[in-house]
Amino acid sequence: MIVSLKPGAPQAAARRVSDKLRAHGFEPREILGVERIVLAAVGRGERKEALLASLQCDPEVETAVALTSPYKLVHRSANPAGTTVEASGVRFGPGEFTVIAGPCSVESRAQILETARAVKAAGARMLRGGAYKPRTSPYDFQGLEGRGLALLTEARAETGLPFVTEVLTAEDVDAVAEASDMLQVGARNMQNFALLKRLGGCGKPVLLKRGLSATIQELLLAAEYVVAHGNPGVVLCERGIRTFETHTRNTLDLGAVAALRELTHLPIVVDPSHATGRRSLVPPLAKAAAAVGADGLIIEVHPRPEEAWSDGPQSVTPASLAALLRDLAPYAQLEGRRFSQPEPARRATGTEGW
Amino acid sequence: MIVSLKPGAPQAAARRVSDKLRAHGFEPREILGVERIVLAAVGRGERKEALLASLQCDPEVETAVALTSPYKLVHRSANPAGTTVEASGVRFGPGEFTVIAGPCSVESRAQILETARAVKAAGARMLRGGAYKPRTSPYDFQGLEGRGLALLTEARAETGLPFVTEVLTAEDVDAVAEASDMLQVGARNMQNFALLKRLGGCGKPVLLKRGLSATIQELLLAAEYVVAHGNPGVVLCERGIRTFETHTRNTLDLGAVAALRELTHLPIVVDPSHATGRRSLVPPLAKAAAAVGADGLIIEVHPRPEEAWSDGPQSVTPASLAALLRDLAPYAQLEGRRFSQPEPARRATGTEGW
Amino acid sequence: MIVSLKPGAPQAAARRVSDKLRAHGFEPREILGVERIVLAAVGRGERKEALLASLQCDPEVETAVALTSPYKLVHRSANPAGTTVEASGVRFGPGEFTVIAGPCSVESRAQILETARAVKAAGARMLRGGAYKPRTSPYDFQGLEGRGLALLTEARAETGLPFVTEVLTAEDVDAVAEASDMLQVGARNMQNFALLKRLGGCGKPVLLKRGLSATIQELLLAAEYVVAHGNPGVVLCERGIRTFETHTRNTLDLGAVAALRELTHLPIVVDPSHATGRRSLVPPLAKAAAAVGADGLIIEVHPRPEEAWSDGPQSVTPASLAALLRDLAPYAQLEGRRFSQPEPARRATGTEGW
Amino acid sequence: MIVSLKPGAPQAAARRVSDKLRAHGFEPREILGVERIVLAAVGRGERKEALLASLQCDPEVETAVALTSPYKLVHRSANPAGTTVEASGVRFGPGEFTVIAGPCSVESRAQILETARAVKAAGARMLRGGAYKPRTSPYDFQGLEGRGLALLTEARAETGLPFVTEVLTAEDVDAVAEASDMLQVGARNMQNFALLKRLGGCGKPVLLKRGLSATIQELLLAAEYVVAHGNPGVVLCERGIRTFETHTRNTLDLGAVAALRELTHLPIVVDPSHATGRRSLVPPLAKAAAAVGADGLIIEVHPRPEEAWSDGPQSVTPASLAALLRDLAPYAQLEGRRFSQPEPARRATGTEGW
Repeated sequence: MIVSLKPGAPQAAARRVSDKLRAHGFEPREILGVERIVLAAVGRGERKEALLASLQCDPEVETAVALTSPYKLVHRSANPAGTTVEASGVRFGPGEFTVIAGPCSVESRAQILETARAVKAAGARMLRGGAYKPRTSPYDFQGLEGRGLALLTEARAETGLPFVTEVLTAEDVDAVAEASDMLQVGARNMQNFALLKRLGGCGKPVLLKRGLSATIQELLLAAEYVVAHGNPGVVLCERGIRTFETHTRNTLDLGAVAALRELTHLPIVVDPSHATGRRSLVPPLAKAAAAVGADGLIIEVHPRPEEAWSDGPQSVTPASLAALLRDLAPYAQLEGRRFSQPEPARRATGTEGW
Repeated sequence: MIVSLKPGAPQAAARRVSDKLRAHGFEPREILGVERIVLAAVGRGERKEALLASLQCDPEVETAVALTSPYKLVHRSANPAGTTVEASGVRFGPGEFTVIAGPCSVESRAQILETARAVKAAGARMLRGGAYKPRTSPYDFQGLEGRGLALLTEARAETGLPFVTEVLTAEDVDAVAEASDMLQVGARNMQNFALLKRLGGCGKPVLLKRGLSATIQELLLAAEYVVAHGNPGVVLCERGIRTFETHTRNTLDLGAVAALRELTHLPIVVDPSHATGRRSLVPPLAKAAAAVGADGLIIEVHPRPEEAWSDGPQSVTPASLAALLRDLAPYAQLEGRRFSQPEPARRATGTEGW
Repeated sequence: MIVSLKPGAPQAAARRVSDKLRAHGFEPREILGVERIVLAAVGRGERKEALLASLQCDPEVETAVALTSPYKLVHRSANPAGTTVEASGVRFGPGEFTVIAGPCSVESRAQILETARAVKAAGARMLRGGAYKPRTSPYDFQGLEGRGLALLTEARAETGLPFVTEVLTAEDVDAVAEASDMLQVGARNMQNFALLKRLGGCGKPVLLKRGLSATIQELLLAAEYVVAHGNPGVVLCERGIRTFETHTRNTLDLGAVAALRELTHLPIVVDPSHATGRRSLVPPLAKAAAAVGADGLIIEVHPRPEEAWSDGPQSVTPASLAALLRDLAPYAQLEGRRFSQPEPARRATGTEGW
Repeated sequence: MIVSLKPGAPQAAARRVSDKLRAHGFEPREILGVERIVLAAVGRGERKEALLASLQCDPEVETAVALTSPYKLVHRSANPAGTTVEASGVRFGPGEFTVIAGPCSVESRAQILETARAVKAAGARMLRGGAYKPRTSPYDFQGLEGRGLALLTEARAETGLPFVTEVLTAEDVDAVAEASDMLQVGARNMQNFALLKRLGGCGKPVLLKRGLSATIQELLLAAEYVVAHGNPGVVLCERGIRTFETHTRNTLDLGAVAALRELTHLPIVVDPSHATGRRSLVPPLAKAAAAVGADGLIIEVHPRPEEAWSDGPQSVTPASLAALLRDLAPYAQLEGRRFSQPEPARRATGTEGW
């Protein structure tokens, strides 16, 4: 910790700051400059957040900054080789490129079964589908809830694809963890700390989406919540941040993916569907995500996007997904990653465009 | 609803769109332009969100926009005179300027009692204090929880000040509603829809803070959730949004306060403490909030900010609060609002600076 | 300057950094911590920017930060009492609240003369009007240019109001400075450094608008350009920043006004017209600007906004301006500022709404 | 154009709006809805911007929106196959992947010659280097100006690499166009309309960087300025936008690159150096840019980044550039683009890391 006093601050201020540093277990080192006094805190100390806040209140302190990262368990240094997270046999991490696909919402038995079969044939390794839906308006469709979980379970039984589905509140964690293979935390819940704590003990891996205006550090601290509460199986998801640009629904931050690769050992997948809100932009951004070093993708697919109850404009068709994954394969190979190719039989039927 | 086809779209596309509009209860009106066909949907229709999404998926549709507001119950037109929300006798709304003050966190019996007495003497009408704390890092102080509620209850008994406190999760709503006079939804929970729904039936008024990157419309839709689920007592709170500027903790959006006055009948208070993160900026922004037409303020106060366990740098002292509220009184009067002045006896002791 | 090495960096790295510090005239002080070595640079040093960049390139350096402000001449400490800038007798600064008003663009002789008379009667002390217009589209009206300057000059002769007008490029500075009383730098030109340098020698005061995404520090450095090149007469203007919110044209950052008051001695005015883009929001934000401590306002006025060639939706009518300035007067008085009231005769005719 | 009246607006308002539409050459079509009247303007009309603004001022008008794109010449439909821009034999556009590389600033004869030789050997087809530098602080190095141009000319003569360099002001356009092969407009000058107009007649191609907070539409309108003033040779450059994230210098918006591909026929290159501000993130984002469909890259290279006078932290070494371009080649091939490989001899010396 480095504490810089205001120019002209008296020696008494330096003594007061030194006393505070000692009270938190640090040893103060004073540097008498030309314009100002700077104090460096040596040692490990304790209750650093409270100390920092206290120093920032001092009328003679100009700046007080911590030098160490506030997250520890998810820091790259905790596992420099990178962590592999496994969800019912599906692996996310070094050497893998894993595609999750499925509809925004589970709408009906026919819809989810048709989609599950199609995304499996296209090469996806995991199914997604919302049973509990976070919707901006109270008048929008809120999901099939328990019945949605049952239909996802049926789709898994038929296709063998494990599924990830969103959990909205701490109360639902047990039920969703019981049914599903992986639990998704949506962007609007990234800092729902009650939910994060409960997920620490849920026994299933977690797909943690970055909040709309969450910094990289806040995303890592949200992941630290889950891991610190007992669950090491966290996959991060970059899904676009909110900026001034309105042509796309959000702004996909692939620089964050590259930065996260340096900062954490956790796997990172990219959601080009929510990032852009436009299906025509999903394929180029999916390829970019592979090239930047992501560990996989989560893509919204609907057999008939124009009939989807939600997120139709950003959903691709199964045939488009198959074409996209065929195009994607050489990019994943260039990155040295294992990737499921679509089934060749599927090709003949792929006559749709984006 | 207005649907604009792409230039050169065939007449068949117009028929397809017209059929969809009819299927949702609208009557289509077609306008044949020079460059493109435009269709207007007349009538009230139904399942508009699904219809919009479906149209936006149509390969021949360029844009499809709804003309009506997605929120109804909180729209200004539902109560043009403005709504007064009452919390245990404290009123928010037309003709009132209501100040809530207190510490970020309840830390101890002595701290909350001392602060409650001081903010009452300074002219605040309601006490704030966090018992359940949403903290970015899992290693930060997470609040005294149930014991915090008991201490707030004791402070209320002694001072007569009702209190507002944050609730983090749907599971805690009943306990917090039982103890408190008003429940706060924090910025990070503004779109925690499970929480909003539960608050619809909690029987106490709600202080709903704007999310860090929530649009004005999203804030109003979050309020609509609470009202649509049975609770008309919602007070909105502008607390700063996240932008590129780093000198202040957030960017206080007083233009949103003026806009909300036009868009909704609900009361609006301003939080200059979280908006700026700097105590020296709290007084000027408090005055600006009064001048822009806010219905009140929520201000962080700590008897010794440098010892606060959280948010010290943005907390003012009780003496500073008293001075601020004295300065504020004529601004509230100019706006035609009733305002509690600080007790005159307090004046003599106010020797502190900000 | 504080340089923090990476955990585990060898002593040789500390020597290398120390040598660099010495080469730039600093004396290095080394602090051996538990996890890392920190070096403090004592002394005034030279070419700090290059030194910082060089240190940030060092593979063993984690962070290198400067402690001193990069602006000197405009820093509050250079004139703690606050600077008064005068433009042909109109004063901006301590004890004054100065209103500039007029149309976005000079459109015709009749329009500018009518507006000049009306804003003078309403209490404005200075006229604004664009002769050279920065327009997003090449197909929009680009201003009357030289003829616009002549019409502004005529309006000044008739009403006695000095005028401020925008200059778009270094080449035009001499002509605009010759004709006008104050030169405006628009938001899109805030970092047009060639223009800023030329304004340093123009002999007239400058109204410097904050860029759409300029930080407070960048605004101050832009002002430092003008002052360092010889022109101490700079008035800053907060006119809203670009954020994700779309209901208002920009987001007015009144927290920046309060912060600038602490950081610089230069006067600061607020532009509520561009900040909101909606005329109904101009009056409440004008009052908020007065309350937060701004030194004045710049407001767009058009006799018939619906006929304006640009910015009609955010322009108020002369009658509305008169009503606004009447309402504003007590706010300026509360802040201890001198303020021109509208002429009483004008009152009888003020029957228009916003 | 679609004009929606407020609910309950009288028929007289519809007549007033219809008259305005007719006055601008449109034929109005009225649609009488249940809640409101909507008017569609059919025909090509004229002075649409003024008409729109006028309608938005009408107190009975709720919304007025244009349906047609405000840019024409740069719209994809003007050249659906995509435009190739050539700068002294270097081609940007379909089928090419073109790399520009060089230092932020020209610092000395030795530095620019060494860098030019090295980037040529690494596979770059064009040299970059700043002679006129836009710097946030007036105290930073402002460039070698005319002497910088002379040194770039010498480097071109020796290596055969054409060069692009920034022009800061309209006054310098002739001199820079005379010396250089391509003129760069920096992010802070994207809406310097005087400069854009002058570039319309400069006779050399233009590299137009997206502004820090410019929307995609504003970037295209800036390009439209150059083209409408006579210069069809514009290459767009995505270099990151300003957001709340501070870990990276800017946020690279590769979604904008994919969107621009759909919206315009102009070539688009990506600047991963300014986008991230961190040299370790340049390689992954360079690959992502190739995969998303960019037409090339512009990368900052310095032989000794730690000695660079500006932008050292984001500059890669020549050896790193060579390694990066080797890695990039297969990505460009996957996209079907011609790409210059580095010279094989260079490989042996490439022992540096990033």
